[in-house]
Amino acid sequence: MPPGEAGASSDEASSSEASSFDDSLFGPVFTTDDLAEATSGRAWVAGMLAFEAALATAEAEVGLVPPDAAAAIARCCRQADIDPAALGRAARLGASPAIPLVAELRRRLPAEAEGWVHFGATSQDVLDTALMLVLRRVTELVLADLGRLARAAATLAKEHRSTITAARTLLQHAAPTTFGRRAAGWLVAVMEAGDNLREARRSRLAVQLGGPAGTLASLGRSGPRVVGLVATELGLEVPVLPWHTDRTRVAEVSCALALCAGAAGKVALDISLLMQTEVSEVFEPSAAGRGASSSLPHKRNPAMAVEVLAACRRAEALAGVVLSGMVQEQERAVGAWQAEWQTVPELARAAGGAVSFAADMLAGLEVSPARMAQNLAGTGGLALAERLTTELTPLIGYSEARRSVEAASRQVVVAGISLQEALSREPGVAEVMPRLPPDVFDPAGWLGSSEAFVDRALELYHKAYGDD
Amino acid sequence: MPPGEAGASSDEASSSEASSFDDSLFGPVFTTDDLAEATSGRAWVAGMLAFEAALATAEAEVGLVPPDAAAAIARCCRQADIDPAALGRAARLGASPAIPLVAELRRRLPAEAEGWVHFGATSQDVLDTALMLVLRRVTELVLADLGRLARAAATLAKEHRSTITAARTLLQHAAPTTFGRRAAGWLVAVMEAGDNLREARRSRLAVQLGGPAGTLASLGRSGPRVVGLVATELGLEVPVLPWHTDRTRVAEVSCALALCAGAAGKVALDISLLMQTEVSEVFEPSAAGRGASSSLPHKRNPAMAVEVLAACRRAEALAGVVLSGMVQEQERAVGAWQAEWQTVPELARAAGGAVSFAADMLAGLEVSPARMAQNLAGTGGLALAERLTTELTPLIGYSEARRSVEAASRQVVVAGISLQEALSREPGVAEVMPRLPPDVFDPAGWLGSSEAFVDRALELYHKAYGDD
Amino acid sequence: MPPGEAGASSDEASSSEASSFDDSLFGPVFTTDDLAEATSGRAWVAGMLAFEAALATAEAEVGLVPPDAAAAIARCCRQADIDPAALGRAARLGASPAIPLVAELRRRLPAEAEGWVHFGATSQDVLDTALMLVLRRVTELVLADLGRLARAAATLAKEHRSTITAARTLLQHAAPTTFGRRAAGWLVAVMEAGDNLREARRSRLAVQLGGPAGTLASLGRSGPRVVGLVATELGLEVPVLPWHTDRTRVAEVSCALALCAGAAGKVALDISLLMQTEVSEVFEPSAAGRGASSSLPHKRNPAMAVEVLAACRRAEALAGVVLSGMVQEQERAVGAWQAEWQTVPELARAAGGAVSFAADMLAGLEVSPARMAQNLAGTGGLALAERLTTELTPLIGYSEARRSVEAASRQVVVAGISLQEALSREPGVAEVMPRLPPDVFDPAGWLGSSEAFVDRALELYHKAYGDD
Amino acid sequence: MPPGEAGASSDEASSSEASSFDDSLFGPVFTTDDLAEATSGRAWVAGMLAFEAALATAEAEVGLVPPDAAAAIARCCRQADIDPAALGRAARLGASPAIPLVAELRRRLPAEAEGWVHFGATSQDVLDTALMLVLRRVTELVLADLGRLARAAATLAKEHRSTITAARTLLQHAAPTTFGRRAAGWLVAVMEAGDNLREARRSRLAVQLGGPAGTLASLGRSGPRVVGLVATELGLEVPVLPWHTDRTRVAEVSCALALCAGAAGKVALDISLLMQTEVSEVFEPSAAGRGASSSLPHKRNPAMAVEVLAACRRAEALAGVVLSGMVQEQERAVGAWQAEWQTVPELARAAGGAVSFAADMLAGLEVSPARMAQNLAGTGGLALAERLTTELTPLIGYSEARRSVEAASRQVVVAGISLQEALSREPGVAEVMPRLPPDVFDPAGWLGSSEAFVDRALELYHKAYGDD
Repeated sequence: MPPGEAGASSDEASSSEASSFDDSLFGPVFTTDDLAEATSGRAWVAGMLAFEAALATAEAEVGLVPPDAAAAIARCCRQADIDPAALGRAARLGASPAIPLVAELRRRLPAEAEGWVHFGATSQDVLDTALMLVLRRVTELVLADLGRLARAAATLAKEHRSTITAARTLLQHAAPTTFGRRAAGWLVAVMEAGDNLREARRSRLAVQLGGPAGTLASLGRSGPRVVGLVATELGLEVPVLPWHTDRTRVAEVSCALALCAGAAGKVALDISLLMQTEVSEVFEPSAAGRGASSSLPHKRNPAMAVEVLAACRRAEALAGVVLSGMVQEQERAVGAWQAEWQTVPELARAAGGAVSFAADMLAGLEVSPARMAQNLAGTGGLALAERLTTELTPLIGYSEARRSVEAASRQVVVAGISLQEALSREPGVAEVMPRLPPDVFDPAGWLGSSEAFVDRALELYHKAYGDD
Repeated sequence: MPPGEAGASSDEASSSEASSFDDSLFGPVFTTDDLAEATSGRAWVAGMLAFEAALATAEAEVGLVPPDAAAAIARCCRQADIDPAALGRAARLGASPAIPLVAELRRRLPAEAEGWVHFGATSQDVLDTALMLVLRRVTELVLADLGRLARAAATLAKEHRSTITAARTLLQHAAPTTFGRRAAGWLVAVMEAGDNLREARRSRLAVQLGGPAGTLASLGRSGPRVVGLVATELGLEVPVLPWHTDRTRVAEVSCALALCAGAAGKVALDISLLMQTEVSEVFEPSAAGRGASSSLPHKRNPAMAVEVLAACRRAEALAGVVLSGMVQEQERAVGAWQAEWQTVPELARAAGGAVSFAADMLAGLEVSPARMAQNLAGTGGLALAERLTTELTPLIGYSEARRSVEAASRQVVVAGISLQEALSREPGVAEVMPRLPPDVFDPAGWLGSSEAFVDRALELYHKAYGDD
Repeated sequence: MPPGEAGASSDEASSSEASSFDDSLFGPVFTTDDLAEATSGRAWVAGMLAFEAALATAEAEVGLVPPDAAAAIARCCRQADIDPAALGRAARLGASPAIPLVAELRRRLPAEAEGWVHFGATSQDVLDTALMLVLRRVTELVLADLGRLARAAATLAKEHRSTITAARTLLQHAAPTTFGRRAAGWLVAVMEAGDNLREARRSRLAVQLGGPAGTLASLGRSGPRVVGLVATELGLEVPVLPWHTDRTRVAEVSCALALCAGAAGKVALDISLLMQTEVSEVFEPSAAGRGASSSLPHKRNPAMAVEVLAACRRAEALAGVVLSGMVQEQERAVGAWQAEWQTVPELARAAGGAVSFAADMLAGLEVSPARMAQNLAGTGGLALAERLTTELTPLIGYSEARRSVEAASRQVVVAGISLQEALSREPGVAEVMPRLPPDVFDPAGWLGSSEAFVDRALELYHKAYGDD
Repeated sequence: MPPGEAGASSDEASSSEASSFDDSLFGPVFTTDDLAEATSGRAWVAGMLAFEAALATAEAEVGLVPPDAAAAIARCCRQADIDPAALGRAARLGASPAIPLVAELRRRLPAEAEGWVHFGATSQDVLDTALMLVLRRVTELVLADLGRLARAAATLAKEHRSTITAARTLLQHAAPTTFGRRAAGWLVAVMEAGDNLREARRSRLAVQLGGPAGTLASLGRSGPRVVGLVATELGLEVPVLPWHTDRTRVAEVSCALALCAGAAGKVALDISLLMQTEVSEVFEPSAAGRGASSSLPHKRNPAMAVEVLAACRRAEALAGVVLSGMVQEQERAVGAWQAEWQTVPELARAAGGAVSFAADMLAGLEVSPARMAQNLAGTGGLALAERLTTELTPLIGYSEARRSVEAASRQVVVAGISLQEALSREPGVAEVMPRLPPDVFDPAGWLGSSEAFVDRALELYHKAYGDD
């Protein structure tokens, strides 16, 4: 590394160089500022410095490092204003930002302390621990947004517990349901994804400290004790073993983030479909300029849904890089580990952005029960075809019931008459129609357990989130 | 469906048609017969029939279906010999094998029972429940193989707790470790993947029953009770809600399977590297013909590792199909759900195959401690360079220690002398060398916590698996 | 290999073993019988046998192999009835079906010929050449189906060149277009994907023949000549070099197949959206039972679109296995190559199935121009908002034009009046309205180059396909 | 958009906000500064402004836009210093950076010109055309680096045309080859990937201009002419149709980039394997600090290979996002298109970085023919086992030849003797050994067409690149 390059403090980095590596044009469209900050180069450097400080301090505590050296190191790490961009450029030479970071710290320390920085550790210890600290903050943010998303879904489920709408299967009207039932489905998926992420956060964020061979050779018999102290200081778990090429925990957190993206994306897809011109049952929250078009003054685009869905697509692919990267060589991988460095932050931004924007979208959703009723009525009662088959079966037998309902349904489509009228024209049906239940053509009479299901989902939500 | 097509029993399906859709040439290379059977068309059909029988029985219990009809349905399902191939061809028309299955059952039932088959259910209820039953068997098999793989790793960890070998980082000798420490790393990853899969199996395999709109409309107020009865009968969990377009549970199990593949693949990659001609530290278990070459009589190929690694690559990509398929439309997806049908079984075969073959590979692994020692010695002590820097630092200062060790290391490579000799030629070092610990050039003195780490991993293993 | 195992002829394989590895339940839902056959174990074995026959014959021609031995080998290959399932089971031992195949051929040959089978070749030569032969047939089938898909799109483009419909951006009505213009978009994408696949087929299907080290050592100086003869015999290209670990050609064909799937999937997504209950502008071709539901008698599901979309999702992921598998070790890969064996056939089935089913879907598509007009009219002229802004700008300035059109558009949505009426209520607009073109509220007057674009696409189609 | 936000010029954007969206820590480790610049927010904005200028100018030429307005727009675009970060933040509202860009241009223009900016165009026209301009520069850079990589491979192929080394299959010594033959394999793959990218660059980079409905409605009958003028001005192809939701060309370029990454990754994997401590046949170019370790002073890590391999893994996954995103809705996609915005630039950086770093790596590669010879000799002649079988067959028959060579090979491994000695101990072989060719145990006599293959690859290289 050319002398001083990694040591360049922020102001020395020319803005033109910095911005070539920036994502500020498209980045904000798909994630939040908080997530961007939590996964930024600055956040990584802060994590790396926190590791080096905690390591020296712990090693001093067990007597491996002179207390004065440890204090100097900790102070230097606390005060260091290390420019991520300068570090990044210097990292090319050794394929690791940890190498120039350690070199820079050594450059800044007095001679009697420099040899004690990073003592017994390896590059991957620094970077993996920093990753865990980054993920701790990321998962905190995503869980908070999942909470907001769950609350918004719960509110809709409660408010529209009995708002009748068409259930749509394969994009076709199937039978009546309630909008609350649909929202309850969103809610449960979001809670499940949240449980998964919460558990991964609780149990899988562990310190990395193994030294170059994963044996902590330089630490003699104090290895495990130092690991414990560093973990405590940084608020991370103590792993059974150093986990340099056991990426299970990174893969688990990555999958958990991808699940969150999936749960958010499902909501966004539904909203985009329900906002279609011909459907118009819900609308994203309105705000000046939101959902505007560059050329069409009248449009109200599902802009938030678009952002969620695009982020989602990226999240799933990025999780794949981590999963396929689990197969790593011996004690340090040749590429698969290093591919995580950009990938996990991007995954966090994408998945977290999807969740956050979905929460915003759902929290202000405009719902039109009138349009829902109108759309359902638009099919002349076809959504009740299953019920009619069911009710007619005891009267005329299953085969005849199914045949006559199918024939009548075709007439509804072809002749534009209602199912009731069409059925009354079917031979053999007219005479038994008076024996059908009076509400047989009323969607409200064919909701089954919709409302019971809403209640179950809400009960779970209240138990988990304590909201009311 | 042309009359009778789905009803064709096995013997009617011409073998030529059946085999066009078979995977019997390459399939066995990458998975076990048990997993192939557990995910076969026959297993799916059995699951579908079990669902229809359990549904009718439960509906009879709550008074929705006449007991005689339910009994006839259950009997018909038990006795049905439905040919998956005939069902598959008939499934094209409606993009669902459930439709011809139900039609075929109706065809076989007496008039008074036919209308009660599948009563209140939808295609996805049948197929998703069958998937869960398939996954229950798959996860049982994979967990058993994970147990075998863990045992093999634990045995190696114990046996080679103190077998010295080179830790290799970025494919280079780094420092000494023990082969037991490396095996302990495999063991922990396998146990973690196992925990994940066990938990997914325990909590995420739930019955699917929601009816066409996810409301169980035909079941009136008995919906939840019927769900409970069917779940009990089939040994599956009761979900909060029908989960037609909430694929969290499928994605969780898929990710868990991918993690297992990753843990197995890491072992296989290591074995393949350690078997290299120039390394030759371990060998796959020998058997007549195993690892043979079609043209080279002398070769001993890492055939099992190849099979694991190939399966692994597929598993990770297939898990991605499920993850990206979480974003599903409204109450029934247009493609993303249906893409699971072939994908999840293939994922199960690939991931389970990887685990099973890795277990076979590790269980019979031949280990050569002598070759390990020889390879380590081959670098003239370079693997102890870190130690030398550490030990020299108090004597000559960190900068000088690092400089002289680096210079001496270059001499080791260039001049082919030992590190000990090269260091003794470094100005300023020779005089302090007598003050170094006597074992400073002995790898056995630089193992740090290797053995302690082995013990920790084994302790965990014994706690989890009770083996001894 | 246990004696005789690979030699088992078809009838010896018990059906129960064979079917555990079959895909006959779900396979037919997503691909054609022809593609299944073209990628079956039988097709692979045929390709492998063709390679061995061609190799021996070529080697005899250059004098490396005794003519009688070559003739015996060719005869044996021609007559061999090798059961893929038996071969598959035997392939486990050496991670290659080529090894037991060659062993089986040797077993069947007289002593004076057995040593000349596979002379100078390696397993990968056999399997890669068989893959190329499989892909030659696959690409032939897919190109034929792409031709059908293109013709169907061209027919729709021509027939509906002037059928006015709403262009929809972000699922919202944007402005008028013609249905022919939309179909022309499908057509061009299909032709582009076809060009890509045709070129890959023409130039990238090459024989593989390099021997165990890629040097053709056993062939002395005749190596290149033998390669040429085998290529000619099999109808494949001669590569510059044996390409064992240069997977560019496999990746190119795989990407080309994925592009075809993408082009087909785009059509299917559009059809599924246009078939939505509230839109109902097109319908998949009707046939007895097609698009039926297991529980809802009235539904007309986009079953074909579902099949295309599901196949598509798998195709893209499977192509990823090939792409990421390009990074292969030295002269023969440890896993990445072997992962192609199941993956490329599955990719071919999925991509080809998507194209074929999309062709069926489009060829019989029912189109409702009346409903298209009705849906467009349903937004009260909003689709012409851009035009109004454009036409008003010279009269009242851009800012005022945009403001008034936006305000009027809001009134259309809120008050349910037409854009014409709403605009006439805007201050400053009413007075200039008489100066607007008379057709300003007629969608037919705002089609721009729709028809010209249709003509360009059709011209290209006719040039490429010669249809009329 | 809040007034002035998008208009903020670079200096107004606070550095802290900008850097949260930056990739400057890890970015430089995996790509070049040139590629970062070519895909930066600044490059995108420049492309967008070039589009708007070209559009207005072309529209003026056909008489649609007043010449003065067009001149004002072109001037404004030329002079505009639009901060990507400010634009990015403003883009959130409408899920498109084109909207605030156009708004900002309007704000800066005089009233008589503002209505003519972006006239007849849509957001996607601006962004897709900018993408094409970005890809034109990206592909230029990648092709240049592919040229460097090809030259380095060609130089090695030529220089080491006859340098004997072990061919390794499944990581085992197979038979002799030359290092030049291996390099020729790299060369051909790189040239093939280059051909693919060159062709995609030549034929698939087209202007996007269709207006909101893909009909160019506002341009009346001048649509196609304006498209042609804009294409000429920007140096892009004229597409048959606007291609808003036909992503074939983006997918093709993405696949071509992924192929380049694959070709580079294959080289890097080989280098990393050949640099292994026990193999040590080649080394990455040395430079102060390159390949250093943070803790191990003696190591010479394959740092460049690591960078290439990590970039490669990401490239393949990112290409998958584009491929699976081909399935887009109607006339503008809900997510799949927008997911390209971050993905294609990242793919370009990763793939291009892989190629560039691979070129650096290969250009300065240190090769050790002595070590190659030594490693090959280390297996006591086993690499010639195939030859021995071949040569013994005419003397003692194939079965006996194979048996004795296998038996002797086992003795080589077990007893540590040479193949020559082991064979001479085999009954029936000793007596015929004098009749074997004199060079039968000399690797140089068993190179087959290695050198001829090198010559073929070099001939192709010289034809394509004209180098000498």
